[in-house]
Amino acid sequence: MKSKVQAISEKICPLEFAVNTISGKWKIPIIWRINEGEKRPSEMLRGIVKVDRRVLNQQLKELEEDGILSKKSFNELPPRVEYTLTPLGEKLVEVLWKLNAWGELLLQEKSGFK
Amino acid sequence: MKSKVQAISEKICPLEFAVNTISGKWKIPIIWRINEGEKRPSEMLRGIVKVDRRVLNQQLKELEEDGILSKKSFNELPPRVEYTLTPLGEKLVEVLWKLNAWGELLLQEKSGFK
Repeated sequence: MKSKVQAISEKICPLEFAVNTISGKWKIPIIWRINEGEKRPSEMLRGIVKVDRRVLNQQLKELEEDGILSKKSFNELPPRVEYTLTPLGEKLVEVLWKLNAWGELLLQEKSGFK
Repeated sequence: MKSKVQAISEKICPLEFAVNTISGKWKIPIIWRINEGEKRPSEMLRGIVKVDRRVLNQQLKELEEDGILSKKSFNELPPRVEYTLTPLGEKLVEVLWKLNAWGELLLQEKSGFK
């Protein structure tokens, strides 16, 4: 019995780790926008309503530390910074598309109920 | 430009809705365990460390309202209740497996970095 419980825990672990990693505020919209080709924080600030610069920078920093984004700084004046998805980030986007499709089903069922 | 922003918002919407629906406390472990065949709340209480009965019941109720679980009450003494995944819940489990696989990649990269 114990080994079965352990086996389940092992299966939950990467999943919960994944969910915790992407559930930070604005992380999914940020990843989505970078996937759409918005590379610069200033573009994201215009696109994501209600996010402020400090919060955006913190989320970008965490996504970079988690290996989902890579940051490139250009030696220009004014300084320019661009973010792109790493291969790990691109794999995440594939999963997010599947979760998005499931969200559409969920919305359909919800609107059917009400 | 506005239509592009709107198109992006429409794409974010089901995804964020999906993430919000499953990110409630203990929801993923609950869905996972029901998928493993644990149908009764008493089984889940033994299996999920740190969750109490009141919180578990609230999460089960929300998952039922969201159309992810269905609840069957047996007219017995003591009363017996069982939960199973709906077709929508089963589709979610398929996506969670993919997110789990991505979480494994993430854990590998993380352990490689440190």
